[in-house]
Amino acid sequence: MNKEIILTGITPSGTPHLGNYAGAIRPAIENSKRDNVSCFYFLSDYHALIKNQDPELLKQSTREIAATWIALGLDTDKAIFYRQSDIREIPELTWILTCMTAKGLMNRAHAYKAKVAENEEKRSKDPDKGITMGLFCYPVLMAADILMFSANKIPVGKDQIQHIEMARDIAARFNHHYGEILTLPEPLVSDDSAILKGLDGRKMSKSYNNTIPLFGPEKKLRKMIMKIKTDSSEPGEPKETKDNTLFDIYKAFATPDQVEEIRKRYAEGIAWGEMKQILFDCINDHLAEPRKRYNELMKHPGDIEEILVKGAQKARAISGPFLDKIRRAVGLVPIR
Amino acid sequence: MNKEIILTGITPSGTPHLGNYAGAIRPAIENSKRDNVSCFYFLSDYHALIKNQDPELLKQSTREIAATWIALGLDTDKAIFYRQSDIREIPELTWILTCMTAKGLMNRAHAYKAKVAENEEKRSKDPDKGITMGLFCYPVLMAADILMFSANKIPVGKDQIQHIEMARDIAARFNHHYGEILTLPEPLVSDDSAILKGLDGRKMSKSYNNTIPLFGPEKKLRKMIMKIKTDSSEPGEPKETKDNTLFDIYKAFATPDQVEEIRKRYAEGIAWGEMKQILFDCINDHLAEPRKRYNELMKHPGDIEEILVKGAQKARAISGPFLDKIRRAVGLVPIR
Repeated sequence: MNKEIILTGITPSGTPHLGNYAGAIRPAIENSKRDNVSCFYFLSDYHALIKNQDPELLKQSTREIAATWIALGLDTDKAIFYRQSDIREIPELTWILTCMTAKGLMNRAHAYKAKVAENEEKRSKDPDKGITMGLFCYPVLMAADILMFSANKIPVGKDQIQHIEMARDIAARFNHHYGEILTLPEPLVSDDSAILKGLDGRKMSKSYNNTIPLFGPEKKLRKMIMKIKTDSSEPGEPKETKDNTLFDIYKAFATPDQVEEIRKRYAEGIAWGEMKQILFDCINDHLAEPRKRYNELMKHPGDIEEILVKGAQKARAISGPFLDKIRRAVGLVPIR
Repeated sequence: MNKEIILTGITPSGTPHLGNYAGAIRPAIENSKRDNVSCFYFLSDYHALIKNQDPELLKQSTREIAATWIALGLDTDKAIFYRQSDIREIPELTWILTCMTAKGLMNRAHAYKAKVAENEEKRSKDPDKGITMGLFCYPVLMAADILMFSANKIPVGKDQIQHIEMARDIAARFNHHYGEILTLPEPLVSDDSAILKGLDGRKMSKSYNNTIPLFGPEKKLRKMIMKIKTDSSEPGEPKETKDNTLFDIYKAFATPDQVEEIRKRYAEGIAWGEMKQILFDCINDHLAEPRKRYNELMKHPGDIEEILVKGAQKARAISGPFLDKIRRAVGLVPIR
């Protein structure tokens, strides 16, 4: 039986935060250590180009995110960890798949439709105002990312299930025309409990500007945790753990025993200040070692590059021959 | 002063005919012999994938069209003659440019709009019915073809001027974001006199099924020329040269002196049968040698391949470093 192939793209935009860690990075790193799966994790810099036209920002974010994953313990001998733009076969497969994609399918993409709806709300004359072909076409690039490595399990949030359906649709059409070559992927939908709350109690997300950076200085981490919103209940008053941001974040980092202990303390009326200190200690314990490794890596970017180059070599050992097979199937071959 | 760079894509679909020769191939070959220009001619097989999902047909057409251009005297030492799909940098530039292309620009493309109009005429519920992303996105691929080699003159028919305008638009947007890297191309509009008439007097075109193949057997060429439509005027009746298919085709192959001689014979009332024989002799004289070379090449396809491989090497010596420059500009670089 073939191993399960798990693939995840990581868009290098912005600085990684606690929410990224709990929601995506930690489960991915756990998967990378399992024996019965092959993991493909990549920095999706071609995708980043859609929104980011600042080359310095792209470079910085790529460096930070690569360093973050490595520092947090990704097993780069076991998982294949690469930069998308090192896999020169990806854009070529993207074009081949573009010819196999119905325009109607892209018209129905959530991200595109949301932009059109925004324009319509603003009563813009052109519903496509400000929309680039990058935004319109990226589900095809995403399909190429997935299909290139015959990935069969793609961890996604609920809002991204459509991308996997599109990749399946494109792959099925390709296979119909050219034979059974591409593997139809399936979504691995992560449960909502992995979503961390941010400083203001909403989902921790760059777009809400409520994030806690993973590897800021210890002092800053403390300061940010102290800023998390709480209600005005006094020390000694029993407190609800349900929908409590401090408790939710704590749960994502503490052991089950520690969590039960804190649940009792809530009932006994723990003071918010003390709870914040406990949360800070817990997260800081968790991150102290990785933070050290992260800072080391950022001081020696060549070490990050070396890991990515090795990852690309492993990935291209697969994508090269596989693209050749696809080229033969569609008729892009030497003249004989 | 830099040389003028002329670039032409040749889509491998169908068998080349006299109209292709007079309208596109001959002027291109003449350009390839000029000293003050660099010519880039390529078999656009990535484009062919948009309409052609039959790998055997694609291979056959690629072979035939490459053999045709070589047999007709293309100077492949002077011109760079290559297969698009050998230039692995092209799809990558296509993606980078996709991120620089407004969707609105593609909405206005003639070929796409024509398809939508067809659907609307048929009262189809979905105006995008049957339209693939290949058809929708190909102007971006075309821009990559052109911009990759900094081509500044693109020979086009009037109906294709828009493609060049789009490439200019995309290049200008790229340069605005990332600096003056891409050269804005200009259309070289061919005059209508280069359009050859077909068997039925309309423009010779595959879509009208009125073509005369370039390198069919001599007998077949004769038979097809004998089938060209004429009016019912008798031998001895003076005849009009204007809008006369036989005369128009003759003009495309004969010397000016020969043309003047035939003009006189028309006034004197040449018989259509004799004129057809004269036309056949003229075309056949023109094509006898190339036909021999063509048949040789088709018997030795390895010779065609060798020429294309050399062409690709020359092209990639340019596209490789140029794409690196583009990658640096947008921020796709090693981590340092």
